[in-house]
Amino acid sequence: MPALIFRKAVQTDLRTLILLLADDELGQNRETVSDPIADCYIRALKAIEEDQNQLLVAVLEDDQIIGCMQLSYIPGLSRSGMWRGQIESVRIAPSHRGRGIGHRMIEWAIENFRERGCGLVQLTSDKTRPDALRFYSSLGFAPTHEGFKLSL
Amino acid sequence: MPALIFRKAVQTDLRTLILLLADDELGQNRETVSDPIADCYIRALKAIEEDQNQLLVAVLEDDQIIGCMQLSYIPGLSRSGMWRGQIESVRIAPSHRGRGIGHRMIEWAIENFRERGCGLVQLTSDKTRPDALRFYSSLGFAPTHEGFKLSL
Repeated sequence: MPALIFRKAVQTDLRTLILLLADDELGQNRETVSDPIADCYIRALKAIEEDQNQLLVAVLEDDQIIGCMQLSYIPGLSRSGMWRGQIESVRIAPSHRGRGIGHRMIEWAIENFRERGCGLVQLTSDKTRPDALRFYSSLGFAPTHEGFKLSL
Repeated sequence: MPALIFRKAVQTDLRTLILLLADDELGQNRETVSDPIADCYIRALKAIEEDQNQLLVAVLEDDQIIGCMQLSYIPGLSRSGMWRGQIESVRIAPSHRGRGIGHRMIEWAIENFRERGCGLVQLTSDKTRPDALRFYSSLGFAPTHEGFKLSL
């Protein structure tokens, strides 16, 4: 199994990350692919970097970015002041799917959250992604909650 | 309809907020009610206050805290660098339920997220809370996602 490198995403990764986000069934109509890179992404990465409770992770194989995910560390009062780890925007390059990379990414995220002292990991998955229920269940996640969204 | 005050929660609110979190079907076994206040809550409030993208809201009627909720402003790359507003730990004192206070709280949260430039509001609700689906749907939320949790 080839080694995966997990590291914080930096500005020079942006072009690759945007293409990764856009190369997705649901994402293709949501992203702005342009040259130069649209300001909205530069501002977004800056906001992520300025927040010590956000980590945008680039996943590399053979020096190439093949995946990404965002981790949020959310402090809270409830459950005796428990921190939550939240996973958002998980993407894997189409050419690298079906090889267990997603599992390794989520396992890395879980371990990272454990090290940060989180008591719970949470994520939501679009109900129109049919494989996700099985995928996250196989990693020990339970679909105990309804995930509500409201566009503004 | 009596006026509600929405303000940032401060340390002197902690005792009331812990009781509010504990006075809940699911919350009663999760919280630590003690005098003096358990350190875990003091640390948790400090972590919330130190994160500019977290806001713990105390809701008051007649100078008394009758509800609380936590708002998280989550920066992200996806959807063209869209910010997400997330609502967590919504609680209303049992004596004040059934009067539409929850609606007014969520509406306040939505407006707050709009002012902060969020493009989406999201939350998850335990599937064992039977009234929540109807409640959030009536506010315009769509249950489009599965909410997965994994305890560490």
